[in-house]
Amino acid sequence: MKKINLVIGIHNHQPIGNFDHVLEDAYQKAYLPFLKVLEKHPKVKVSIHYTGFLLEWLRRNHEVIFNEVRDLVKIGQVHLMTGGFYEPILAIIPDRDKVGQIRKLTEYIKKNFGFRPVGMWLAERVWEQHIVKPIAETGIQYVVIDDTHFKYVGLKDEDLLGYYVTEEQGKPLNVFPISKMLRYTIPFQPVERTIEYLRSIASEDGKRVAVYADDGEKFGVWPNTFKHVYADGWLEKFFEALEENSDWINIVHFSEALEKIKPIGRVYLQNASYAEMLQWALPPELFLKYEEFEKKLKHDGLFDRYEEFVRGGYWRNFLVKYPESNNIHKKMSRLSERAHRLERRGIKVDRALDKIWAAQCNDPYWHGVFGGLYLPNLRYPVYKSLIEAENELDKLEKKSGLWIAAEDFDLDGSKEVLVESSTVNAYFKPNEGASLFELDYKSVAFNFLDIVNRRLEGYHKKLTERPINGDNGEGIHSIHDMVVYKEDGLERLLYYDWYRRASFVDHFLGNASLEDFANAQYEELGDFVSGTYEFEFQMSRKRDTSLLSFTRNGFVKKDGRDFPIKLSKQFFFTDRKPHIKCEYTITNLSEGEIDLNFGVEFNFGLLAGDAHDRYYLIDGKKPSDSRLRSKGESYGVSSVSVVDEWQGIYAEVDVDKPQSLWRFPIETVSLSESGFERVYQSSVIFFHSRITLRQEHRINFSLVLGRLRPYATK
Amino acid sequence: MKKINLVIGIHNHQPIGNFDHVLEDAYQKAYLPFLKVLEKHPKVKVSIHYTGFLLEWLRRNHEVIFNEVRDLVKIGQVHLMTGGFYEPILAIIPDRDKVGQIRKLTEYIKKNFGFRPVGMWLAERVWEQHIVKPIAETGIQYVVIDDTHFKYVGLKDEDLLGYYVTEEQGKPLNVFPISKMLRYTIPFQPVERTIEYLRSIASEDGKRVAVYADDGEKFGVWPNTFKHVYADGWLEKFFEALEENSDWINIVHFSEALEKIKPIGRVYLQNASYAEMLQWALPPELFLKYEEFEKKLKHDGLFDRYEEFVRGGYWRNFLVKYPESNNIHKKMSRLSERAHRLERRGIKVDRALDKIWAAQCNDPYWHGVFGGLYLPNLRYPVYKSLIEAENELDKLEKKSGLWIAAEDFDLDGSKEVLVESSTVNAYFKPNEGASLFELDYKSVAFNFLDIVNRRLEGYHKKLTERPINGDNGEGIHSIHDMVVYKEDGLERLLYYDWYRRASFVDHFLGNASLEDFANAQYEELGDFVSGTYEFEFQMSRKRDTSLLSFTRNGFVKKDGRDFPIKLSKQFFFTDRKPHIKCEYTITNLSEGEIDLNFGVEFNFGLLAGDAHDRYYLIDGKKPSDSRLRSKGESYGVSSVSVVDEWQGIYAEVDVDKPQSLWRFPIETVSLSESGFERVYQSSVIFFHSRITLRQEHRINFSLVLGRLRPYATK
Repeated sequence: MKKINLVIGIHNHQPIGNFDHVLEDAYQKAYLPFLKVLEKHPKVKVSIHYTGFLLEWLRRNHEVIFNEVRDLVKIGQVHLMTGGFYEPILAIIPDRDKVGQIRKLTEYIKKNFGFRPVGMWLAERVWEQHIVKPIAETGIQYVVIDDTHFKYVGLKDEDLLGYYVTEEQGKPLNVFPISKMLRYTIPFQPVERTIEYLRSIASEDGKRVAVYADDGEKFGVWPNTFKHVYADGWLEKFFEALEENSDWINIVHFSEALEKIKPIGRVYLQNASYAEMLQWALPPELFLKYEEFEKKLKHDGLFDRYEEFVRGGYWRNFLVKYPESNNIHKKMSRLSERAHRLERRGIKVDRALDKIWAAQCNDPYWHGVFGGLYLPNLRYPVYKSLIEAENELDKLEKKSGLWIAAEDFDLDGSKEVLVESSTVNAYFKPNEGASLFELDYKSVAFNFLDIVNRRLEGYHKKLTERPINGDNGEGIHSIHDMVVYKEDGLERLLYYDWYRRASFVDHFLGNASLEDFANAQYEELGDFVSGTYEFEFQMSRKRDTSLLSFTRNGFVKKDGRDFPIKLSKQFFFTDRKPHIKCEYTITNLSEGEIDLNFGVEFNFGLLAGDAHDRYYLIDGKKPSDSRLRSKGESYGVSSVSVVDEWQGIYAEVDVDKPQSLWRFPIETVSLSESGFERVYQSSVIFFHSRITLRQEHRINFSLVLGRLRPYATK
Repeated sequence: MKKINLVIGIHNHQPIGNFDHVLEDAYQKAYLPFLKVLEKHPKVKVSIHYTGFLLEWLRRNHEVIFNEVRDLVKIGQVHLMTGGFYEPILAIIPDRDKVGQIRKLTEYIKKNFGFRPVGMWLAERVWEQHIVKPIAETGIQYVVIDDTHFKYVGLKDEDLLGYYVTEEQGKPLNVFPISKMLRYTIPFQPVERTIEYLRSIASEDGKRVAVYADDGEKFGVWPNTFKHVYADGWLEKFFEALEENSDWINIVHFSEALEKIKPIGRVYLQNASYAEMLQWALPPELFLKYEEFEKKLKHDGLFDRYEEFVRGGYWRNFLVKYPESNNIHKKMSRLSERAHRLERRGIKVDRALDKIWAAQCNDPYWHGVFGGLYLPNLRYPVYKSLIEAENELDKLEKKSGLWIAAEDFDLDGSKEVLVESSTVNAYFKPNEGASLFELDYKSVAFNFLDIVNRRLEGYHKKLTERPINGDNGEGIHSIHDMVVYKEDGLERLLYYDWYRRASFVDHFLGNASLEDFANAQYEELGDFVSGTYEFEFQMSRKRDTSLLSFTRNGFVKKDGRDFPIKLSKQFFFTDRKPHIKCEYTITNLSEGEIDLNFGVEFNFGLLAGDAHDRYYLIDGKKPSDSRLRSKGESYGVSSVSVVDEWQGIYAEVDVDKPQSLWRFPIETVSLSESGFERVYQSSVIFFHSRITLRQEHRINFSLVLGRLRPYATK
């Protein structure tokens, strides 16, 4: 009789800081009911992976599920898989953290479930061959990844009914290929399809292994799946079918397969993830070109035959595609190195390291069809965790006073100027207009400049070339081609920023309107927004105040001529006060006088543009529409604040000469699991005025961060 | 005026142990004349890389070239690049060795040329992102690789006129993309083509950089290039043209470009090498399929537009494609780990490590259009170096007596049995017929089983579908499609081995002829050749003798039935003597008697099949054709030797019952730079006889390795 071994793996994950209601929903609709059905079918063995943040949440909110899992583990029906505790992309974090994160989850599982996991789930299945060494060093025996990875090195479907062994620097690791076919049939196709497929690959020697492994959220959380999987009984039927056919379908755990069956052979795997992920990692232009190529190949009937030679980009280039992701990554990397340095000196850094690890949670580092990087609520906990780790390291190092240095923070080959005090981090980019690109308010662990630019995404094309649903001349659209909008008019928001949204960005405008300026559809007359500034800095002897000067000799276009203009900004910092003062001096380097429209842009990202507890104050008063998402024009303004009652903080910009004020939101349009959506990223405050420049013009700003007094929150 | 920066890089490499005459030829035809022309054009700056083995050879044989280089370095015309000393594929060697090999070449260059290199050549441009960390740790600032690598992550030609910065775990490294266009025009196209191309990419800001970098052997060693480059004066003309246009072509060294020009941006690069290499790394079937796909795309006019999405395999799978390459790699890896272990204990292992590094030389680890792995003369020095390192480590560890263990040497998931004494290493593969796959004669540091199997290569198709030169109905062939043969009839050698050529391989034959057997075109009646044997071993208390038994209960087909047969081989080892005794017992597990034709196969690879100093002795006498390449049949033979006067050694197989003997060579057909060639790999000695098996049949072999006495070499 022909037999087949079947391994079933489930991966349950929630990013750190995800909303309680999202987790509660997933618990009620997927995590709990799955186990309830499983309990009734003791023959069905399942290997489950829960990521660390989810486990911690479950323990706090539904400890009962721990008992359920423990019972299933005790009888051997459930095995648990480990992984990086906070589900990091393993390849992009330091080796020390790779090992540390895996060990942490392994220990957690041992302690809470009395089970010693020997296999792991690889976050987003982002594989690079060299990760084998740190993984193997934690004692892990197997990893589960897509069959795609194997096909890219020349293996075919029939070569993938089992597992392989690989190695790095002599350290071996077993790798199981996940069947794409089973990922498509379970739970989306009628149960019989899966059984039929298993029958078609069963063999006389009974040595083949079919691996199903996928996200647990597909069993209840994904649209329509709750009804399908539970109410309509798909899962019940599936498990029944497995039990009925248990004479030839032999359900085993991964570790049992390792014990009973020899590996098919050796293999080395190409850098890869699932094919879609590799397309998302491409720059938008190439993203579209890739799509075009795939379409052409499908049209010519070549795709199915040659698919394994067709490949998109490389995961790590999300860090290039999105400088905002790079900012998180390099901040994490810098803090991690700092923690390891202390650790090597014998200092206990566990708390700081754990916060750094939490900030390695992969979700906000990338973007595909899920929100990811675009979602402020996913970035917020990551920055929070990083700044908290920094505060912790400051304490351990007894760091005090101001600290200022030029170093290549974002690894673009040019130095940034980093100012750090006990109250704020203020990071400037001399080669991009000497703008302030990170502003951490350390006591609340919040980065006011955690903002994502509006930029072209390959999928925006779908909004502008909006097909008529149902019939576009090519017949019915598949679900993947359907365009779902959370609101109308999103295509009118498709403007793209040509410079990084930051603070102290220096503009010279012509006759641009607020609308044009907000849409980044205006002519910039100066070259100070993205030009390079020279810099120098000095520190008082007590290291309690410091001075940072930026100067650029640039040009402003006017009447067809380039007028040489020198712009200097002198920043003053005081330790212990979250205040930044800046003196602007604009110098006319030519004879005569010039009329200029000069303005300075500030950005503040406060997570929600529409919330009642986040608003503007203009010269101390709420404007008629005070929402952070509001757009408006005011005149003769000396002070603007953005207030966040939720965090109990505010940021205030004061200017010594009353100015015209434009304020408007930066909102991105991105794709999420539920369709196209607009996401609030930042509120722009733009102070500007017309000046007639003879020799020199001065203007002083101060940027003050503060905490609201309790009564102010009323 | 539009200007362009041009960097010129030259890479000169010879594999360890390459023939003196090959190096001499390269010296006379390329390395020396290139410098002679260069000297006359002081404005032409060139960055040159010489690999370590070549430098050592040059110093021994033509020290004068050291002075020349030193003089050019002194005036700043030449910069030197470093790299792994013995030109290893950096990604596949241990991190400790990556760093060690680079430091060794850097030190060598500093000492001999008074120059401190800050950049390196990456062997075969085999890139994996994680190598950035060890490279950066050696203080290297830049690496030079193909533009292909950059295109695979979404960059276009116009994005590649400069350099990028990348990082691994916070360690930065600059990467220069080599222009494919310049690699095509220099030195193969008229000089003007290069100048025209440079003009087409020159820019007003003068900040672009064009990088040419390629093998130095293309200037004189490659077919027809000596005449073209020197006699016809191409190089002279090229340098003149560069000098004449020096008002807009600004020749700079890599390190000058780093100082003067900012990087274009950040990048992370996909695992890659040049495109051809990635095709070669595919299994043969996929190799052909890839070719087919490329042809189809070209035919449909899609290739040029979508090339960046079309990719072959992954370099490391050469280790899967060729188990012989894996054997070298895993032996290297095991010894390297052993050396590092001693080093960590504070023991000085420099000599052993250096030999291990020499054995990391990339050439015999892979195969494309150059001989590589197929060439015994490239594998020989690598095994020699490894066994010498092992002898050195034995001394350092004071290892003595016999040592026997089961470990997964080749990392295929099953254990091998490794027997090591002070005189031999004998490695057995229980899951492949308990055959002996490595036999190191330690005192001469030689592996008698360094053999490459005859296996299908994608390009063999060209031999069987031999097109008529000039016209095949599709017009004129390009040079790449032309098939060049070193001799006729090679297609008749295209037989493929279905098991690994080894020793103590157990056959049950039907009526196969010598010819059939030699061509692996016969029916194997038993399942003992590649079946799995059980094993056990024991050691005498003094650790001077040991016993290793393999047993398999298998089957032999006869008259349409499967007869159960038990085969056991008992090996006896003695320390200090390079002798292996083996007692075979064949047991009939069924009733009655069976007539069998049983034989045991031995293989010995002695580098040259045709040499006068390598021959057979049969029962002590030279047969009429005694060359190792000869094929023959003898009867009633009790002893066969293969003698290698060049190394002064022999291997002798004795059997206690006279047997029939078949001997024949294993010759592969592979592609080299000069066309298809046959390469001697091994001499097969096959002892066999008909037996009528009632209950048990015994037969004893002994395999003796020895050194020739001086007078025997006459």
